[in-house]
Amino acid sequence: MAVQTATFEKTIRTLLDEKKYQTIKDVLVTMEPADIAAVFDDFGEERMALLFRLLPKETAAETFAELESEIQETLIRGFSDRELHELVNELYVDDAADLVDEMPANVVKRILAQADPQMRKEINEILRYPENSAGSIMTTEYVSLRPKMTVAEAITRIRRTGVDKETIYTCYVTEGRKLLGAVSVKDLLLAVDDDAPVSSLMDENVISVGTLTDQEEVATMLSKYNFLALPVVDTDGRMVGIVTFDDAMDVLVEETTEDIEKMAGMLPSEKTYLRSTPWDLFKHRIPWLALLMISATFTGLIITNFENALAAQVVLTAFIPMLMDTGGNSGSQASVTIIRALSLGELEFSDAPKVVWKEIRTAVLCGCALAALCFVKIMLFDRLLLGNTDITLMTAFVVCFTMALTVLIAKVVGCSLPMAAKKIGFDPAVMASPFITTIVDALSLLVYFGIASALLF
Amino acid sequence: MAVQTATFEKTIRTLLDEKKYQTIKDVLVTMEPADIAAVFDDFGEERMALLFRLLPKETAAETFAELESEIQETLIRGFSDRELHELVNELYVDDAADLVDEMPANVVKRILAQADPQMRKEINEILRYPENSAGSIMTTEYVSLRPKMTVAEAITRIRRTGVDKETIYTCYVTEGRKLLGAVSVKDLLLAVDDDAPVSSLMDENVISVGTLTDQEEVATMLSKYNFLALPVVDTDGRMVGIVTFDDAMDVLVEETTEDIEKMAGMLPSEKTYLRSTPWDLFKHRIPWLALLMISATFTGLIITNFENALAAQVVLTAFIPMLMDTGGNSGSQASVTIIRALSLGELEFSDAPKVVWKEIRTAVLCGCALAALCFVKIMLFDRLLLGNTDITLMTAFVVCFTMALTVLIAKVVGCSLPMAAKKIGFDPAVMASPFITTIVDALSLLVYFGIASALLF
Repeated sequence: MAVQTATFEKTIRTLLDEKKYQTIKDVLVTMEPADIAAVFDDFGEERMALLFRLLPKETAAETFAELESEIQETLIRGFSDRELHELVNELYVDDAADLVDEMPANVVKRILAQADPQMRKEINEILRYPENSAGSIMTTEYVSLRPKMTVAEAITRIRRTGVDKETIYTCYVTEGRKLLGAVSVKDLLLAVDDDAPVSSLMDENVISVGTLTDQEEVATMLSKYNFLALPVVDTDGRMVGIVTFDDAMDVLVEETTEDIEKMAGMLPSEKTYLRSTPWDLFKHRIPWLALLMISATFTGLIITNFENALAAQVVLTAFIPMLMDTGGNSGSQASVTIIRALSLGELEFSDAPKVVWKEIRTAVLCGCALAALCFVKIMLFDRLLLGNTDITLMTAFVVCFTMALTVLIAKVVGCSLPMAAKKIGFDPAVMASPFITTIVDALSLLVYFGIASALLF
Repeated sequence: MAVQTATFEKTIRTLLDEKKYQTIKDVLVTMEPADIAAVFDDFGEERMALLFRLLPKETAAETFAELESEIQETLIRGFSDRELHELVNELYVDDAADLVDEMPANVVKRILAQADPQMRKEINEILRYPENSAGSIMTTEYVSLRPKMTVAEAITRIRRTGVDKETIYTCYVTEGRKLLGAVSVKDLLLAVDDDAPVSSLMDENVISVGTLTDQEEVATMLSKYNFLALPVVDTDGRMVGIVTFDDAMDVLVEETTEDIEKMAGMLPSEKTYLRSTPWDLFKHRIPWLALLMISATFTGLIITNFENALAAQVVLTAFIPMLMDTGGNSGSQASVTIIRALSLGELEFSDAPKVVWKEIRTAVLCGCALAALCFVKIMLFDRLLLGNTDITLMTAFVVCFTMALTVLIAKVVGCSLPMAAKKIGFDPAVMASPFITTIVDALSLLVYFGIASALLF
């Protein structure tokens, strides 16, 4: 797909150079807003504004909603008041609210000044809700029906009011703003009796979310139930908006990217990689790097403590990286598995005993297998093949026993920390590889030197 | 949500004990298929079959599609032929194909024997396509219209044939099975002129995918364009089916979980965590653990090579874990960022020079900051506070210089390997933390001992 975008960019650049505006118009009309937005990315301010003016009104609004906020700002600064007026009122209200949320104050002032009163009211309503809440990603443009309407009346109402709604396919039956039920256009169209009241067709057990429900939970619910939209209600059960599946898909992708970034020891970033400067990347990466580097002091202290023992048995040093890496890998396998299961809602804190017991059994299997393999490797490769006679049977035993114990410790720490974090309201994703590795490193060295001291010296 | 499921399970268990079947029916009718399926999980074979028979026909089919394959198998084995016949023909054809794909041969035979001829034909058509292709996740049940139909005729056709279709909201205009365009029910309903031909309303620039397009690409496209469905066409441009947004959402979640598992050095698993036995977990985790453990031999060899130097300067050993961990963390930050950007389609191989240059600049920033911090830490904490007089200014310099270089190497390796993997057709996700860590460990030790040999001995 990215290849396709790149090709379009070249075509349009050439057409712009040749001032063939009608041809550009004809080409743009065949494209999806998301693709047009991707092409825009590559042009300078002047040409972007020119291209934008070539788009039909509705496509222009949809394309605008897909653009990065910096580009949006540039475009708006170039718009006349009339152009801005047209654009703002053509946007879906949730996109307009996003825009207001991201623009600097002076641009916001212009946008709100150009919004029609109803639009301004709805934007402000959405902006009242905290970031990442259902209220903040919902749209207030949905089709509402009355319970006593007939099927025919309902269809007429949809045909009359549907054009500005983000989805018409799920309609909500309300009375005095109270949400009574939901009915799909499919049900209405396929209804045998055109005179039947809507209330006889509607599903009364409609699943709704609160305005403050976390957006990730809303997205997971939409994906679980395969709904096109979920109604959002306030604390009195009055309907205030809907969250549609396309916004839910975006939330799922964003939240997962955030989780992955946290799991790799980074602060989550809002910009795409290609738009981030090295300075942006630095700011997101250095906090954890610095923290983890300082934490490794403990591991260093443990080694310093056993310096004399190590000087006498330098051969032990050669196995430190293998033990540390295997511990880190074992721990991150467990922690990442648990973090993902937690974020998909497959696990919760009450499963903790089951999880720990499962990890202990898995660790015993992994630990024994690795210890056996390691023993063979040390005796055949390190001792026989390389002829390192410093390695005694006892050394090999110490290393392999440490290996098995490290795997056990790593798996237990790896599965416990994310669950504990979840319990106390921390983000489990932070308890992933880098963090676990640092803890497991220190623990595995303690075990190593402990066993070595007992058996070798 | 999981809490809610648990409560339902208790209620239904009590009602079953009291044989209050009508009450159970009334309760089940209020629930979504996904929630009913979650409750089923907790009952034994006999009670599951009993519960299943209490469901209305359509809900039964939808619930069945949400069940884990082991439970599906158990249920089918308990069904009479008549029950199986009813179920199979009520399923959406993509769910039926999934079912046939997952059941053992003798069960498949029974399912196909009970399927109506048309259903059997469509199941077999879907099963022809390779796993993870668009063809394998599509459904053949969509609404097709002719270009010359009027809006009124089209709506009549939808009302007549729509009941069995997975979505009626996007209709496809075909002639001789060739895909000409798409038209939404919204466009049809909102059309001003009921006698206008469908061809005048349809979008001719309809985006379609091939039967062999990778399912992840299909899902990304659906999410990018906010479509309800994407048409699937064969190599001659003939329409064969559609992929709907709900299947795309499932694919997105599944593929991301797979990526995350690979990034943590595990083979991807199809079962949820709670359903996996320790033996399952062991099988998925041991291959990478073993491989990486063996690879750590190189790191061990490097240390062995410098054993004499280390014996003379044991203080150097204490910094090994810090250098290795920081290198590993720096590398995995870069690799994970790139892997995610690749899988979201934000990056491709041609961006490689840009990416490497960006990582180099980021690495210089991170490396210098960490080296400075490390220098302060060593001189103030290790030397002054702990009074470790073995640490000279020169030692501190060697450690910090190694630190900066290691970060640089780690970032470059971390960003290059996933892009290279993508280029040669490997899965970039495998090039994540554990793999990168092992390589960076060895490289950073070489640098460390190299610099130390040059400056200290």
